[in-house]
Amino acid sequence: MKYNFKITGFGNYLPSKVETSEEISKKINKSEDWIISRTGIKSRRVSEIDVDEMGAIAAREAIGNKKKPDLIINASGVPKQTIPDTSVFIQKELGYSGIPSFSVHSTCLSFITALNVAGSFIHTDSYKNILIVSSDRGTRGRNFNEPESASILGDAAAAVYLEKTKEDSGLIDFEMSTFPDGSDLTEVRGGGTNLHPQDSQTKFEDNLFSMKGPKVFKFTLPKVYRMISNILKRNKLGQRDINLLIPHQASGKAIAAYSKFGGFLDDQVMNIISDSGNCVAASLPLALVEAHKANKINKDDIVFLVGTGAGLSIASAIIKV
Amino acid sequence: MKYNFKITGFGNYLPSKVETSEEISKKINKSEDWIISRTGIKSRRVSEIDVDEMGAIAAREAIGNKKKPDLIINASGVPKQTIPDTSVFIQKELGYSGIPSFSVHSTCLSFITALNVAGSFIHTDSYKNILIVSSDRGTRGRNFNEPESASILGDAAAAVYLEKTKEDSGLIDFEMSTFPDGSDLTEVRGGGTNLHPQDSQTKFEDNLFSMKGPKVFKFTLPKVYRMISNILKRNKLGQRDINLLIPHQASGKAIAAYSKFGGFLDDQVMNIISDSGNCVAASLPLALVEAHKANKINKDDIVFLVGTGAGLSIASAIIKV
Repeated sequence: MKYNFKITGFGNYLPSKVETSEEISKKINKSEDWIISRTGIKSRRVSEIDVDEMGAIAAREAIGNKKKPDLIINASGVPKQTIPDTSVFIQKELGYSGIPSFSVHSTCLSFITALNVAGSFIHTDSYKNILIVSSDRGTRGRNFNEPESASILGDAAAAVYLEKTKEDSGLIDFEMSTFPDGSDLTEVRGGGTNLHPQDSQTKFEDNLFSMKGPKVFKFTLPKVYRMISNILKRNKLGQRDINLLIPHQASGKAIAAYSKFGGFLDDQVMNIISDSGNCVAASLPLALVEAHKANKINKDDIVFLVGTGAGLSIASAIIKV
Repeated sequence: MKYNFKITGFGNYLPSKVETSEEISKKINKSEDWIISRTGIKSRRVSEIDVDEMGAIAAREAIGNKKKPDLIINASGVPKQTIPDTSVFIQKELGYSGIPSFSVHSTCLSFITALNVAGSFIHTDSYKNILIVSSDRGTRGRNFNEPESASILGDAAAAVYLEKTKEDSGLIDFEMSTFPDGSDLTEVRGGGTNLHPQDSQTKFEDNLFSMKGPKVFKFTLPKVYRMISNILKRNKLGQRDINLLIPHQASGKAIAAYSKFGGFLDDQVMNIISDSGNCVAASLPLALVEAHKANKINKDDIVFLVGTGAGLSIASAIIKV
């Protein structure tokens, strides 16, 4: 076991407001069928509260009756604001004070990256009870002039509580690769020093989400396939040894690729995109939490977390539950 | 030793353009004396290239002739853009591809937080050669209607290269605390989901840096003092056992407090604020790199890194060089 820990708390928040693909179709001048056939998304949630409140709801469920965490990691794709980082506002919503907190950011892979960080910290006895929260409100950044990317985004939050354990559970292996030649394929170009509101050339849409979906798919497919093959081989595992593959919910097509090209069976792949869309960094932990609640993952199961994110980056984590 | 590693590469970038406090005094309707007496800053640098290019210059120096890193962590206060995270753009500038990269964000404490993450990774053999880059261009976010905060910001980048080692060096101890009741004392309120450009109530200055300096000082002083006392005591160290204290360069007054109230001698405290200002997350590693270049830290020295950051957070790291 690379890092020994146990996920003892799972929480999520799905906003109550549902927006169907029929409803959004009018905003992007495409038909409902166009959206569903391209993205696999029938509806998504739209949050009326901000990411810190959303994250805190998921976090409270993950913490349950357990003791307060000794570290809080925010692992979201888009922050509440530039400064301070969102972990502070989540801690504030939770009513805590004094707990160290910071953010890990690798867009849609933030959760998987944070899990690697948290696992290492628990393994080295640096922290004993770590809360990881991913909360994203992608619908705030939709550009309705980009029909495909605008139709995939949904809002959600998810959280897990990690503990030191004497059981044989935790992170078996982890791998990540970043390919900057794909950096312009998924972007929010504003929000930093690059295209600041004070610059005359900054356009309103620079602050919105922009994704060249088909190019991302083509760029990442062989790389993801290669990484999955390598990490399974390195750990002497075959696809059938994996109890559940939980991918980032990028798009219906991206999720289907794990069975179509990746050697997994359809029912080995967690797929929740139809009703919640692509929830940026919250997508992967949301699928993990929903899998837990649906009893799709049980003690001693081998779970494969995998995804692609802006960068472009790809990452895999094999965990034993 | 909590985490065994060695810092084998140090690099920095200070933009060539100098802006004196006399020059900035006209923009904020205050005298040069007002600025220097309140902040201790005579001049700061203003970058004409963006944070990724700045960071890459520092990184190249830190890497030198060593092998390319197997992980890149961006540890800056403000990103280049919202998505992807800045580590991607730094990697792109360095001409690398395939190296895992992500960002750690805790504003001015991002470097010290990233050092804790990287140390844990090296200690657990997860990565062997880690590049940490802090690059901030605070002058882009100055609000000239806030004379004090506008006059403290400067631009810089700094980078370190960490390696696995058999020597008795690395991180001796680390501590961080976050107090969200101080979250409104240091802010850039825009750039995320909170005050998005699409919201009618979002004002231009929401995208600029805002800091209530005297309140931050009052809020953090007793907390920092308590943390320093505790961590020294826990490690059976006294102030005189520290070869060099390297604080975040928040303000002249904040740096002076480590000798005035913290029990250190003036010449134990690294102070570079006069000529470079508060460079956000780059300030602390810049001071570390400058100390190394000036031969102020040597093999087996005990160095105390400490600082405060938006959140408000405070953190301490004791390292053996």
